[in-house]
Amino acid sequence: MKYLLTIAYDGTAYCGWQIQPDNDTVQGRITEAAKKIFGMPCSISGCSRTDSGVHALDFKATLEPTADNAPIIPCNRLPIALNTCLPPDISVLSAETVDDTFHVRYDVKRKEYLYRIKVSNVKDPFEKNRSYLVYKPLSIELMNKAAEYIIGKQDFACFMASGSNIKDTVRTVYSAHFEEKNGIIEFRIQGDGFLYNMVRIIVGTMLSVSNGSITPQEIPEIIASKDRTRAGMTVPASGLYLARVYY
Amino acid sequence: MKYLLTIAYDGTAYCGWQIQPDNDTVQGRITEAAKKIFGMPCSISGCSRTDSGVHALDFKATLEPTADNAPIIPCNRLPIALNTCLPPDISVLSAETVDDTFHVRYDVKRKEYLYRIKVSNVKDPFEKNRSYLVYKPLSIELMNKAAEYIIGKQDFACFMASGSNIKDTVRTVYSAHFEEKNGIIEFRIQGDGFLYNMVRIIVGTMLSVSNGSITPQEIPEIIASKDRTRAGMTVPASGLYLARVYY
Repeated sequence: MKYLLTIAYDGTAYCGWQIQPDNDTVQGRITEAAKKIFGMPCSISGCSRTDSGVHALDFKATLEPTADNAPIIPCNRLPIALNTCLPPDISVLSAETVDDTFHVRYDVKRKEYLYRIKVSNVKDPFEKNRSYLVYKPLSIELMNKAAEYIIGKQDFACFMASGSNIKDTVRTVYSAHFEEKNGIIEFRIQGDGFLYNMVRIIVGTMLSVSNGSITPQEIPEIIASKDRTRAGMTVPASGLYLARVYY
Repeated sequence: MKYLLTIAYDGTAYCGWQIQPDNDTVQGRITEAAKKIFGMPCSISGCSRTDSGVHALDFKATLEPTADNAPIIPCNRLPIALNTCLPPDISVLSAETVDDTFHVRYDVKRKEYLYRIKVSNVKDPFEKNRSYLVYKPLSIELMNKAAEYIIGKQDFACFMASGSNIKDTVRTVYSAHFEEKNGIIEFRIQGDGFLYNMVRIIVGTMLSVSNGSITPQEIPEIIASKDRTRAGMTVPASGLYLARVYY
């Protein structure tokens, strides 16, 4: 039996999704919980690696018990059972069964990331670790003009952090848009995949557009240069959410 | 110079507002920060005591340096200065100067509390310590019918936790209403003052109304009985917010 889990987590306390020997990770926690519930080791695979401190609203992972005599747990009971073994900042929202041929990572068609920015001269205690605090007002209009140049199938090497050994840096961005909602500026971006730190560097570049140090019209030139040093800063992980995964 | 501060805090990590010798409190933190900024001890008074784990969106406190030679700090700079000495879960939102005769506690005309309830069969990681999780659907209609009986000048002894040495248990409730907002049920109550745990016991009583163990029409009878044991449970502190203070 292969289960597909939908998981939400506040990533503040975790070294990202992927299991690591000496660090607390979301995959590590799910693996432990599954072992307790099924009474045997289970194989857990995720749709994506999220970095340390990054959150997820709709993370997908498959769970497969490693022995044939595993108990059959109904999909409406499995989230509740796993949640009893998970800390309050990780929650399994739902479960369904999928074909053995389903691959949680390679079958992803499209992902949406959300980046939350709070503009204020004082911090908001309820936004601690959940958004990036910016002191000066931002121009949503300018940033949206620039964001339009991100859309399309392009080589996004300029928006990839060093330290990645990815060779093919072409990705397709389907949409990229800023919008203010309840006092928070939300940036939503959809694409078929994202390079290492790509969303955080795009947001940093848009902040440079807002403050005038990059013009929207320079974006195509920066993309064409494939030069990371021409793009903006990498904004903090705490504002980033894996918001939706499409198969 | 007497400053009136507006403060927001996530109360999760604190033993309430009021300063205590061996516990971490919000008043304790503000007192320390003020001492650093003014270079001398400052007297800090709050509009209310909030309990351990209770949050505030609009807490009011006065700050008075204890010596005449205190530096004059402009009101637009004071929040930013204090915030540099405060942890991320406490924030001074604004400051103004007030008359020496102003009393931050006795001059309060009306307070609004908010109680947040999340109805779901799975926990939401982003609501950890911020709302009360209820598994079964609630009847907002029934609870609002019952809440109407709370309104008015009445003896609310039945909604006061034991351990309080208050003698006069008459208070005026101006409004009390449940409303669903973005998947959260919000209860807002305004009154001229509240007894110990009063809002949390009222919410607990309304949950009993929702599940049918108390009818809305029984509320006047329960209030008249002055008997705590006839009201509902005390819901957890983590869903409670001091939402607004009126002078």
